[in-house]
Amino acid sequence: MNESSTGADVDSIEESTSAAPSGLSRRGLLGLALGGGVASLAVGVGAGITGGVAIGRARAEAEAQAAYEFFGAHQAGITTPVQEHLHFASFDMMPRTDRDDLVTLLQDWTYAASRMMQGLEVSATGAVGGDPETPPDDTGEAFGLPASGLTITIGFGPSLFENEEGDRYGIAALRPAALERLPSFLGDDLVPEASHGDLCIQACADDPQVAVHAIRNLSRIAFGRAKLRWSQLGFGKTSRTTSSQATPRNLFGFKDGTANILADDAAALDAHVWVSASDEPAWMSGGSYLVARKIAMLIETWDRVRLSEQETIIGRDKGEGAPLSGGDEFTAPDFSSSGIDPDSHVRLAHPDQNDGIRILRRGFNYVNGNNELGRLDAGLFFLSYQRDPEQFITLQRRLATDRMNEYIRHVGSGIWAVPAGVSPGSFVGAELFA
Amino acid sequence: MNESSTGADVDSIEESTSAAPSGLSRRGLLGLALGGGVASLAVGVGAGITGGVAIGRARAEAEAQAAYEFFGAHQAGITTPVQEHLHFASFDMMPRTDRDDLVTLLQDWTYAASRMMQGLEVSATGAVGGDPETPPDDTGEAFGLPASGLTITIGFGPSLFENEEGDRYGIAALRPAALERLPSFLGDDLVPEASHGDLCIQACADDPQVAVHAIRNLSRIAFGRAKLRWSQLGFGKTSRTTSSQATPRNLFGFKDGTANILADDAAALDAHVWVSASDEPAWMSGGSYLVARKIAMLIETWDRVRLSEQETIIGRDKGEGAPLSGGDEFTAPDFSSSGIDPDSHVRLAHPDQNDGIRILRRGFNYVNGNNELGRLDAGLFFLSYQRDPEQFITLQRRLATDRMNEYIRHVGSGIWAVPAGVSPGSFVGAELFA
Repeated sequence: MNESSTGADVDSIEESTSAAPSGLSRRGLLGLALGGGVASLAVGVGAGITGGVAIGRARAEAEAQAAYEFFGAHQAGITTPVQEHLHFASFDMMPRTDRDDLVTLLQDWTYAASRMMQGLEVSATGAVGGDPETPPDDTGEAFGLPASGLTITIGFGPSLFENEEGDRYGIAALRPAALERLPSFLGDDLVPEASHGDLCIQACADDPQVAVHAIRNLSRIAFGRAKLRWSQLGFGKTSRTTSSQATPRNLFGFKDGTANILADDAAALDAHVWVSASDEPAWMSGGSYLVARKIAMLIETWDRVRLSEQETIIGRDKGEGAPLSGGDEFTAPDFSSSGIDPDSHVRLAHPDQNDGIRILRRGFNYVNGNNELGRLDAGLFFLSYQRDPEQFITLQRRLATDRMNEYIRHVGSGIWAVPAGVSPGSFVGAELFA
Repeated sequence: MNESSTGADVDSIEESTSAAPSGLSRRGLLGLALGGGVASLAVGVGAGITGGVAIGRARAEAEAQAAYEFFGAHQAGITTPVQEHLHFASFDMMPRTDRDDLVTLLQDWTYAASRMMQGLEVSATGAVGGDPETPPDDTGEAFGLPASGLTITIGFGPSLFENEEGDRYGIAALRPAALERLPSFLGDDLVPEASHGDLCIQACADDPQVAVHAIRNLSRIAFGRAKLRWSQLGFGKTSRTTSSQATPRNLFGFKDGTANILADDAAALDAHVWVSASDEPAWMSGGSYLVARKIAMLIETWDRVRLSEQETIIGRDKGEGAPLSGGDEFTAPDFSSSGIDPDSHVRLAHPDQNDGIRILRRGFNYVNGNNELGRLDAGLFFLSYQRDPEQFITLQRRLATDRMNEYIRHVGSGIWAVPAGVSPGSFVGAELFA
């Protein structure tokens, strides 16, 4: 264990659980023992009585808030109706960690994630911990808040399988051939502090405090095993995944995600999003590939563009989002119409112009203050899920002549294999270590 | 007008309105003309029909969302029930601007702010502007969103009155004696990119996209006259201003703002928040002084502190927020009790220990990604309103021995005079230029 003077005290967390066989952390084991279903996860809430009255987030204000199931055929947070807020985090494994460290980390993340998605504290010691003479397991800023639709989605980057240090975890042979750093695209201006990483966690929730709490606590649990590499907050979902969600707008002021794959379109999900049992490798069956792109928008420049030009660039009208070939938002664009520019975004990105290729988008807007020129540091944190990274690569290459490129810069990039959902009693990615 | 190749095109905005007398911008004049009340602000919505169907945010999804009045005795956003999200922005006037530039800027901000707080677009040309051959007045990302409880609060910094260039706007003699940069406090570690500024705008809303839209558009309107100096997003209000709001938690996991001044406590507001008619200078009557402090929290270090020590530092229990002298959250602390440490935060900050001094707090949590060590760049964006800056200064000096100081760093600081509310037909700060 790394003995740095800062970071979470995992030893003290572990002390509150019973002994475990070597090779499994005690908390990891507890996670497995509790994995039998949602109901059992409520065990232990309210057990931590100290310094006053124990409170559980689950029994706080009975708000009508969604709570999603962590366990299932696919990981949550992919087809789940897009929430209002994002905290995305990329992690690197710490030096000199071994396969057991990685496995127990995934077990501990599974346990904590399954609890937090139910609106519970990060461990069974409850809101303020079991022992006043140890640091609380849970950092506390979400006490009293409901689950708020939290989903936690975990992925494995190419470097987890093999990096310059070699095959650290004995899984190099199992790396999907398609899981490699994305190629360079025209106009890429990537910065290391928003790119790549051994592991990723996408936390989405309708309350940003709940999403931040999840990333903070999962980072803390990772102490000594994995370290936060970079992270990004987002808001105002720019894609929809259910037909009941109105199409949101991106920071160019246009509706975004009109033609997205929806969660109830099982055929499209099977064709374009989920890795099938016939795809390689077998351990990825039921999973998906996640691409993240931090796309800075030059919004002050965009805001000087006349409306007619903005609409030509996008290929849709700004008010309704209808294609410039006519109709309303959901009318299929007619690319034979002279109304749609050949290098408009809608045409270059459209499945009809890309051999039917589709992806499931799940992006968010971001604003990180401003730069020294007084321009907002703002843009789109693009997230997409696809059955094969080649789908994204093909589409992104197609966008090389996109007229929108004058107003955006891709500054961050990452790709992760998101394994299938977790069975009760197991943990994220268990098939990879079977 | 600055002819930089980026930034908003104010000329084109102005072209859509009629001629105005010199010394008043045409948009400023329009603002005054429309200032007669809320109902009249709906004029023009839907008038901008181009490229499809015009939409107004006001007639989009009929959500039960608050819309607050811009005009009134005091500016909105001080006693308004604290919203879920903040975008705070500090501005500096541009070089070679004159008094007319400042006055017309305040008029234009008044006009736009009064519209946006009603859920309308930034000008009467509506959602996508009146002329497709000009850039739309409104940047568009809030089309279709309700007012979302937006408040816009505008303040004047010490440097607006006089700086190293002198008395740029002929108002140096009217600077309140108390309006000067805050003194240095023990432990200050201020950075310029989060400190000071000629003007500030506090935009609060229950939807971050609405708050960001407000700051973006007010920055754009300022083009050529004032430039964004720094800005900060926040979430998860850490104070409450009505008794119906539950006390939220800060990123140390503790309830924050239990003893805040509430909006219905008129006597306390008059005593501690509003500048009275008998205070100097007269133009500040009905206003307040805003202090902003960006307080970085060393959360990974805090998270290693045992619960009993965390509670001793704060002086309250973590679960309920009750003082350690006993009772529940709203029980008055008994400072004669040995349960409360003399250097606990609750004791040092309490009015009973500070000659009855109170302030109205309105802070938010913030997370700006993480640093290169993998630690979250997170903390409290503290905002307080007081009748006299001396209230804050006294309290902050009192906190010199606060045990919490080991876990926080003040990295940003600013102070602004927030003038009284605006009468219909007038503009923010008009009394200063009378």
